[in-house]
Amino acid sequence: MATAKRVLTTAFGELSALFGERFTTAQAVRDHHARGQTYYPPHPPDAVVFPRSTEEVAKLVRICARERIPMVPFGVGSSLEGQVNALEGGVTIDLSQMDRIVRVSTDDLDCTVEAGVTRKQLNAHLRDTGLFYPVDPGADASIGGMAATRASGTNAVRYGTLRETVLGLTVVTADGRVIHTGGRSRKSAAGYDLTRLFVGSEGTLGVITEVTLRLFGQPEAVAAAVCSFPSLEAAVKTVILTIQSGIPVARIELLDEVQVDACNRYSKLDLALKPTIFFEFHGSQRGVDEQVEQVGGIAKEYGVSDFRWASRPEDRTTLWQARHDAYYACIALRPGCKGWATDVCVPISALAECLLETKADIQANGLVAPIVGHVGDGNFHVCFVVDPDDQAEMTKAKAINDRMIRRALALGGTCTGEHGVGFAKLPYLKAEHGEALSLMRAIKRALDPDNLMNPGKVVPPL
Amino acid sequence: MATAKRVLTTAFGELSALFGERFTTAQAVRDHHARGQTYYPPHPPDAVVFPRSTEEVAKLVRICARERIPMVPFGVGSSLEGQVNALEGGVTIDLSQMDRIVRVSTDDLDCTVEAGVTRKQLNAHLRDTGLFYPVDPGADASIGGMAATRASGTNAVRYGTLRETVLGLTVVTADGRVIHTGGRSRKSAAGYDLTRLFVGSEGTLGVITEVTLRLFGQPEAVAAAVCSFPSLEAAVKTVILTIQSGIPVARIELLDEVQVDACNRYSKLDLALKPTIFFEFHGSQRGVDEQVEQVGGIAKEYGVSDFRWASRPEDRTTLWQARHDAYYACIALRPGCKGWATDVCVPISALAECLLETKADIQANGLVAPIVGHVGDGNFHVCFVVDPDDQAEMTKAKAINDRMIRRALALGGTCTGEHGVGFAKLPYLKAEHGEALSLMRAIKRALDPDNLMNPGKVVPPL
Repeated sequence: MATAKRVLTTAFGELSALFGERFTTAQAVRDHHARGQTYYPPHPPDAVVFPRSTEEVAKLVRICARERIPMVPFGVGSSLEGQVNALEGGVTIDLSQMDRIVRVSTDDLDCTVEAGVTRKQLNAHLRDTGLFYPVDPGADASIGGMAATRASGTNAVRYGTLRETVLGLTVVTADGRVIHTGGRSRKSAAGYDLTRLFVGSEGTLGVITEVTLRLFGQPEAVAAAVCSFPSLEAAVKTVILTIQSGIPVARIELLDEVQVDACNRYSKLDLALKPTIFFEFHGSQRGVDEQVEQVGGIAKEYGVSDFRWASRPEDRTTLWQARHDAYYACIALRPGCKGWATDVCVPISALAECLLETKADIQANGLVAPIVGHVGDGNFHVCFVVDPDDQAEMTKAKAINDRMIRRALALGGTCTGEHGVGFAKLPYLKAEHGEALSLMRAIKRALDPDNLMNPGKVVPPL
Repeated sequence: MATAKRVLTTAFGELSALFGERFTTAQAVRDHHARGQTYYPPHPPDAVVFPRSTEEVAKLVRICARERIPMVPFGVGSSLEGQVNALEGGVTIDLSQMDRIVRVSTDDLDCTVEAGVTRKQLNAHLRDTGLFYPVDPGADASIGGMAATRASGTNAVRYGTLRETVLGLTVVTADGRVIHTGGRSRKSAAGYDLTRLFVGSEGTLGVITEVTLRLFGQPEAVAAAVCSFPSLEAAVKTVILTIQSGIPVARIELLDEVQVDACNRYSKLDLALKPTIFFEFHGSQRGVDEQVEQVGGIAKEYGVSDFRWASRPEDRTTLWQARHDAYYACIALRPGCKGWATDVCVPISALAECLLETKADIQANGLVAPIVGHVGDGNFHVCFVVDPDDQAEMTKAKAINDRMIRRALALGGTCTGEHGVGFAKLPYLKAEHGEALSLMRAIKRALDPDNLMNPGKVVPPL
């Protein structure tokens, strides 16, 4: 649904006058903003604006709100469930030029950054301070986008997700006011938790323009290891027992043998073609030694004889780069095909059942769909490598995804552990949340009565 | 403001028929529910109901909603800022008979409990499982009340607050529907974070009837110590450096010399009359040894020569019982007086300034007001021991509290780290949240359009 031309003409004249070359209706730019990292069909906006300050975002939101033009906030476009598709046209607000690191406090272990700062940019800036920001979804996503999608990733099992590591936000509301949520103290009981309401709201309640984050001391010692298992079940059970034993692993990532094969080819590794876990341990030297010993003991119970250590920082970088490139490695398995990454998350005790049944379903249907997961959280991903024009294949993939989600929900899990809802997971929210959905709708109506903020996302239509 | 008599007669007939003796208008019961643990004047409800299930809560809420009768959820009455005062009369919903532990999963390290289960009841139940629930506000509060006020307390510095350790809730909405928020998976990106919206909403958006919580393994080793400092500044600086060094202390509680004196008298201790820190360390034996060594080194820098260890469990119990009884110890300093406990929380780097200036202010005004704090979070409490009928004294206490809050806000802190808003902290929310308050109002209107849920709390009137 495109926005009426007359309305656009008025607003676009104003926006063009305000933003100059940072306002554009060029087709190439609109196409670049038409979707995230996904096979879903593109939905380009009518225009793209590149604001450089919260005040500029507020000005443009006021203009769009007045003219009832839909708005879609955009970070780097790494979202996976259709979050940035401009389903109803309108204006995409590209925050990439809001890339200032506003402040870092080594005394308080926190920082404030503009929404367009990326994860790698922040950590490069922090390198010499002894601090780092742990949340790492793989992609070099913008911090604003990570906040909007409640990102987590490889380190969440130890440090928490974006939800646990955010202190406050600056947000431009749907009518163009600037508000500040949360603050800089570690905790507060002063009123409703607006910070966590906006975290994970995917741009549907307002535009996040600044984020205040907790930081962590760079660990004194780091050890990483790769470990191959005789079966997927043995690998999953090692994960479960590690978590149940309360061992504070920093990362515990599972790759099935299909994903290992993909990574070997794409990232030039030579891992055994078996279900594999990448581990990382953080702490003091003594603490890391202790964790290594404990996890080694557990793995041994499940038939593993040796860990392959990545002791040098550059070996660890190779390992984690390979993990982060898993999506591209998947796609490279079938040149010309697209990747469709989906995720679920279940209580850890249900991980083996959910993961193994899903694996069997993929195999029974003969699809190429590697499995990889932040399994310490009970979270795993399937990346269907598909030809979107092949109806039979797509039907199979959709059915497997659907069964995986129903399976996760039946086991007390969620239809998405970290990718978010976008529009692609909308059909599952009723089954997951039931009557609670009516409260989400009420909140959406209260904060965005004209349904202009990223319409068609997160909250399913009645 | 009392509810109109005709309305009450209709509704009370129905409630009496439904609940029998568990519905009462007896003066003694109403008086018992007229306020929390506070000097504020009482506001009794018109009636008290003791439901035993979520479905019973839903039934009574539907009756009260239909007749526009205000409702106040009530746990054990340990709140400090007027949260349970029935400011507009109506019905108090006492959840103490909803005291079932619904399920405990040792495999997933989580549990679901009814709202009336208390913290101590839960941990007694868990004792033989090897697990525990760490959030400990001191009082033996109900878990529902702790969720409603976003409780934290002594262990929060290590394990997080209620906010970080909650997985999901069952809530009866303002119109009497039953919803389930969150779930049992460790993380989810599936829609708005209703769980954390209700956590800290103090009964103003609905009634929390069940809570699903993360549990933690009982630590292999525990060490606790008491340490006296030459000055309050030295004690605070030890705290700051400990936190900045990333040492995972489980508890780090500061008592000024006035509080130490009060605890010595009330709990029959013989601590030196100096600013004192109670430490507790959790971990493996090696991990605890390492933490003890590190913290010892820091304390030495600030002029401390020795720690007094509480190695036996019964010594630790004595210590923490004394800490938990700090409020009663304060009141006992001036027989016949009342305790007025208030709290603020600031970024850790601002703790020395905020705490020392507040201490000086108390001394300059000659009041009895011990300071105690969960200082690892930047959170501290002042307990004014006052005669509420002494106008001059009350004026001084109010002015000190006011200056302390303004000081905390100016330093980037919050007007309450954990006690919550109730009605007593309402005057400070505008200064803390500014325009963001309008969103809290919009959410309140959206979820409780008739303003029946705990009216007069959390959200200041326009």
